[in-house]
Amino acid sequence: MNTAHRRETGLRQYAEVMTVDAPSDGSPAIADGLIDFVFAEIWSRPGLSRRDRRFVTLACVAAADADEPLEQHVYAALNSGDLSITEMRETVLHFAVYAGWPKASRFNIVVDAQWARILGERGLADTPPDPLLPLATESDPELRLQGGERSFKEINCIPFAPVRDNPYSGAGILNFVFGEMWLRPGLGMKERRLVTVACVAFQDAELPIQSHVYAALKSGDVSFDEMDEVALHFAAYYGWPKASHLDSAIGVQKQRVLAEATSEAAS
Amino acid sequence: MNTAHRRETGLRQYAEVMTVDAPSDGSPAIADGLIDFVFAEIWSRPGLSRRDRRFVTLACVAAADADEPLEQHVYAALNSGDLSITEMRETVLHFAVYAGWPKASRFNIVVDAQWARILGERGLADTPPDPLLPLATESDPELRLQGGERSFKEINCIPFAPVRDNPYSGAGILNFVFGEMWLRPGLGMKERRLVTVACVAFQDAELPIQSHVYAALKSGDVSFDEMDEVALHFAAYYGWPKASHLDSAIGVQKQRVLAEATSEAAS
Amino acid sequence: MNTAHRRETGLRQYAEVMTVDAPSDGSPAIADGLIDFVFAEIWSRPGLSRRDRRFVTLACVAAADADEPLEQHVYAALNSGDLSITEMRETVLHFAVYAGWPKASRFNIVVDAQWARILGERGLADTPPDPLLPLATESDPELRLQGGERSFKEINCIPFAPVRDNPYSGAGILNFVFGEMWLRPGLGMKERRLVTVACVAFQDAELPIQSHVYAALKSGDVSFDEMDEVALHFAAYYGWPKASHLDSAIGVQKQRVLAEATSEAAS
Repeated sequence: MNTAHRRETGLRQYAEVMTVDAPSDGSPAIADGLIDFVFAEIWSRPGLSRRDRRFVTLACVAAADADEPLEQHVYAALNSGDLSITEMRETVLHFAVYAGWPKASRFNIVVDAQWARILGERGLADTPPDPLLPLATESDPELRLQGGERSFKEINCIPFAPVRDNPYSGAGILNFVFGEMWLRPGLGMKERRLVTVACVAFQDAELPIQSHVYAALKSGDVSFDEMDEVALHFAAYYGWPKASHLDSAIGVQKQRVLAEATSEAAS
Repeated sequence: MNTAHRRETGLRQYAEVMTVDAPSDGSPAIADGLIDFVFAEIWSRPGLSRRDRRFVTLACVAAADADEPLEQHVYAALNSGDLSITEMRETVLHFAVYAGWPKASRFNIVVDAQWARILGERGLADTPPDPLLPLATESDPELRLQGGERSFKEINCIPFAPVRDNPYSGAGILNFVFGEMWLRPGLGMKERRLVTVACVAFQDAELPIQSHVYAALKSGDVSFDEMDEVALHFAAYYGWPKASHLDSAIGVQKQRVLAEATSEAAS
Repeated sequence: MNTAHRRETGLRQYAEVMTVDAPSDGSPAIADGLIDFVFAEIWSRPGLSRRDRRFVTLACVAAADADEPLEQHVYAALNSGDLSITEMRETVLHFAVYAGWPKASRFNIVVDAQWARILGERGLADTPPDPLLPLATESDPELRLQGGERSFKEINCIPFAPVRDNPYSGAGILNFVFGEMWLRPGLGMKERRLVTVACVAFQDAELPIQSHVYAALKSGDVSFDEMDEVALHFAAYYGWPKASHLDSAIGVQKQRVLAEATSEAAS
């Protein structure tokens, strides 16, 4: 597209995605980068829905510690109606697990403030929040661990679970992360995958990025083409170096999933 | 101290802290930076014990995504006897909560590998790990939440707890982080404080850094002078920009704790 | 140098680099760390110019999420005259690509504020910003991609470019990052290298750190000795664990560049 058309597309996309007009800022980062590239050429792409792009974006801006973009994207996601407040709050908890509680604490505060702003703008009273109890998962420690082992296998698409008698994998992973957190209602499995993939991509530890990209593809929750779009979208919101690593991991895991499908078809 | 003496001190400190000889590497980053500054002038300072410095260091290297330093520091902490394997494993879980599970996953793998290496070097068989069950905390959801509210107040040294009916603060903070994780045996409160302060300092969200520095000082678990040393040690392992922010937070929270002490003494 | 002389050197260097007096803060992190080490012993080293050190520093402080150091370093870089406002704004765009838009967004806001502060202090009116259009690069998508492939090879010093038909490498890398961003006037190639190396070092994905260190050395834009100084400077501003990884990558890539030079000389 030509230069003027590109700018126009960027401004229109910005307004649609962010639910407010684009800033009139001619600096290279904003005009050439954010409007002409991120909005004109990334958000406008058809391969991943705008709603799905929100989960990748929210994880990245909540990780990046820049208050204003976080406030703007939380507002936009809620104000557009793309995410309900229940989904947003559940996203904060999922993010807490994969990016740490301190960043999630600020994310949670921003959600409260932006939701209050939206309710104020619309003249609406807040509705009571979803009650925490009863939990959807077991209370008995042994049953929780068994549930955690089961869901660890199902969600990670692998036939084994880690050992119980280790604080990280027992009290943490089996008891809470897979025994409770992933099983909570309020957020779909695809959405949890998108938040997780974004988080493991910026956290950048070697095995989790491979295992979560694999599971997202293997489960079919995220298609191959959607995952390619995740890598591009992530690049814009977290930078090319980590996106390059994510892109490599996607290439490896696609091959693995395809090889397994071929092998299963043959047997 | 003069240049030769400083280098010598750095090499000796390196050997004592890392339990292996320093690398013979003349690059500025290693010779002028790591040996002459980090080991000669930071690890050697008396204001914070070598064992205490380990917890700050481990959190920083586990956050930094650099495999080799993480392996070296896990090995050194265990090989020196400064941390038991139980304490190290509990540190991984505590780190998972404050820095996210993906980085903790790698940390956990590194702990397994380095512990196996040490056992191999010593010709020892591994002892069975501490059993996970029974948990020290309640199983009933209502009782867990009540316990979480109580320990949230005690550990944070504040008179209130967050709302239950919010996934992040209810299912996350009250139910797991303060209802279970902080209350586990295997790691002392001071050690948990040191890991937490390091994590909130690199995560750098506005409120958690203030609240955890406050609570560490207010509780008396970390003395004012020790906290100053934490800031310097953290600077070496995570860089001056975040350390500078931590240092400011420490200044603010010392004033707050002192003002409260004065006010309590007067009343 | 002795202790008193070192403190004095640190205070003088601080004043020269930061363009304001050093804070009178006796805490270990500031006095023993920042003044005695970072300013007395790093900024004062001759192997990398003060202006060049600014680009490494700016990338690190913009990544580190600590507002005050970012404000101080942006102010100092502009106020000293080491960077023009055009170079600073272009640095923000380059940083956006390598560290993600959210952090760059805050960086951009800080640049605006500090530039306004400097103009105010000098009683100057702001000059109109450099107009964005016309772009220096092609608008036609096919020509942009061709340009992107060409500059990808030239800048990375390798004989191949990635596939177009992948969102990350096609729409992202070829179309924008190398088809447009790297080719913009307003910032020199050496400066872009320094920002990039700092960013890949803190992002710490495996391949980009190797490829960008290689290209910076291979192109001759950054000399071997300068790159060693980059590692030390980076250590101070982002911590030793990641600097240690950067230092290893530099060692490996120096060997590669030297081996290629030997092989080319022999043939």
